[in-house]
Amino acid sequence: MSSRIKHRKLDLKDGRVDLAHGSGGRAMAHLIAELFQPSLDNDWLRRGNDQAAFDVAGGRMVITTDGYVVSPLFFPGGDIGSLAVHGTINDIAMSGAKPLYLSAAFIIEEGFPLSDLQRIADSMGAASRAAGVPVVTGDTKVVERGKADGVFITTTGVGVVPAGLDLSAQQAQVGDKVLLSGTIGDHGVAVMSQRQNLAFETSIVSDSAALHGLVAAMVATAPQALRVMRDPTRGGLAATLNELAQQSGAGFRLDEQQLPVRPEVAAACELLGLDPLYVANEGKLVAVVAADAADSVLAAMRAHPLGRDAALIGEVVEDDHRFVQMTTSFGGGRIVDWLSGEQLPRIC
Amino acid sequence: MSSRIKHRKLDLKDGRVDLAHGSGGRAMAHLIAELFQPSLDNDWLRRGNDQAAFDVAGGRMVITTDGYVVSPLFFPGGDIGSLAVHGTINDIAMSGAKPLYLSAAFIIEEGFPLSDLQRIADSMGAASRAAGVPVVTGDTKVVERGKADGVFITTTGVGVVPAGLDLSAQQAQVGDKVLLSGTIGDHGVAVMSQRQNLAFETSIVSDSAALHGLVAAMVATAPQALRVMRDPTRGGLAATLNELAQQSGAGFRLDEQQLPVRPEVAAACELLGLDPLYVANEGKLVAVVAADAADSVLAAMRAHPLGRDAALIGEVVEDDHRFVQMTTSFGGGRIVDWLSGEQLPRIC
Repeated sequence: MSSRIKHRKLDLKDGRVDLAHGSGGRAMAHLIAELFQPSLDNDWLRRGNDQAAFDVAGGRMVITTDGYVVSPLFFPGGDIGSLAVHGTINDIAMSGAKPLYLSAAFIIEEGFPLSDLQRIADSMGAASRAAGVPVVTGDTKVVERGKADGVFITTTGVGVVPAGLDLSAQQAQVGDKVLLSGTIGDHGVAVMSQRQNLAFETSIVSDSAALHGLVAAMVATAPQALRVMRDPTRGGLAATLNELAQQSGAGFRLDEQQLPVRPEVAAACELLGLDPLYVANEGKLVAVVAADAADSVLAAMRAHPLGRDAALIGEVVEDDHRFVQMTTSFGGGRIVDWLSGEQLPRIC
Repeated sequence: MSSRIKHRKLDLKDGRVDLAHGSGGRAMAHLIAELFQPSLDNDWLRRGNDQAAFDVAGGRMVITTDGYVVSPLFFPGGDIGSLAVHGTINDIAMSGAKPLYLSAAFIIEEGFPLSDLQRIADSMGAASRAAGVPVVTGDTKVVERGKADGVFITTTGVGVVPAGLDLSAQQAQVGDKVLLSGTIGDHGVAVMSQRQNLAFETSIVSDSAALHGLVAAMVATAPQALRVMRDPTRGGLAATLNELAQQSGAGFRLDEQQLPVRPEVAAACELLGLDPLYVANEGKLVAVVAADAADSVLAAMRAHPLGRDAALIGEVVEDDHRFVQMTTSFGGGRIVDWLSGEQLPRIC
């Protein structure tokens, strides 16, 4: 900002957000200029428009949005800022698209420490630069103390789909294989380990990560064999597979022995009375692929750092009831149903 | 949704949102299927993907995002739902772009009445259909009672800029004219009239409206003469003109006699100790246009229902200090500065 805006610098060490920071006036301009712009720095934000412009070649695009309300805001392996970047990039990537741009809207509670806001904005900026997907436009609102919980962030992303690719659950066919990119439950357990009422010791960190590089490698390997991809976040792998079963009109059969679960996650879940199948992930994907390409796609996944622990966990089966069934490690069978109630509020 | 999801219908009359509605499980699927999808109905939402795909011709696009935290949620002339549609369409339109698609992310407080959520979703759907801009993807999060304030909505929009159009504050030149599309202060006064601690009688309704039709008429009239457009929301016309002065490196001179203000708004502002220049608008735009095209653009604005009260309110002047100055009705002069503090929290 220019010479007109002379003022005391924001106190980024001990200062707090107040209602004036959401007013549309000078205080808000300072907050944007001194805190958000340096963290997320790029040409679009520097222009100071209420919207960001970009050029696209013609073709198929996707848009997705997600609100992030994770509690606590900081957890092992990430924070609400990096999570809001990764999560929305992943929703774009699950369509096979290359993510291009993000927007970010902050709803901040009056009294929130500026140092925490700085830390979150820095983390967003770092995640966004690492992923090569800039945050090109944003918004800041402030609500009175007690009317929010620290900060909520909504990110929206746009991306471009490679020509000829059209993934959707409706494409899944009986006999297709189900691939999972790595261990389940890490994010949910990492967040829960920080909850005041649950605090327990664990070395587990969130798997929060941007998956578009892994997806690009899978698309490059067998574009025609990919039916549908999803990231199993809220509700875990169980919710995602039930959703896919619903939408595809088929059933899924899993093999429990093939499901990658870290021993520490299994132990924490047992302690908490949870099933890792229902615990949120933030850096994992599940893909339904044609049977004859399953091995080559799995190999491509394992060759990528974010797919090292990838596994073939099951297949699509004929089932008018659209059930997700699992052959357990003891050789028995069980239905993996949707969870009816709320298991883990504010996990993302 | 299909046969698998059999359950008691949502109680849309007396039911309330609970944490399970944000869980990623069955309850959330019901909320989406029974409440959001019918209100916002379109092919994209019906597909049930985490992202929406659309085809674009090549060219210049824009993206914009805004969080809405207005309190109270319902006010004369609109509610948070219609506001979230109009406001984001307007941020797209201010670049001269045609708005194409919207996303909507809801953060809902546990215990929020489903009937109010239904009313808000219906209002969003109606506003979106009237504007011809569908809500193609969304997200729902629920936080515990006392951790939010009813509902917050973040909408993001994308649009396409007509070839050759490139509006920005930097294009404003000394001698350009400033056009305003109608009366100022209506939205802010309408919302304040509903605040419990301020309640007063007024017939004023919010001006909340989607301005892309008005913008299209202006672009059609004189595309080369339009320098920059903004919608004077938070912080009112004063904040918007100061922002434009900053970014353009010039000053602005207004003529108070030309400023359209409804007598009821002037009276309410006097009662509340406010200046209508600082009060939010949600259906107005200010445009800087080349002097020789000002009359024709003004005529085009007045020919549109949302620009009936349009006026030429001032001009761009040379000023190294980048001040916004106003010739008052009494012939004197004053500086119209940014507001330093928070005047009206949660007005949008």
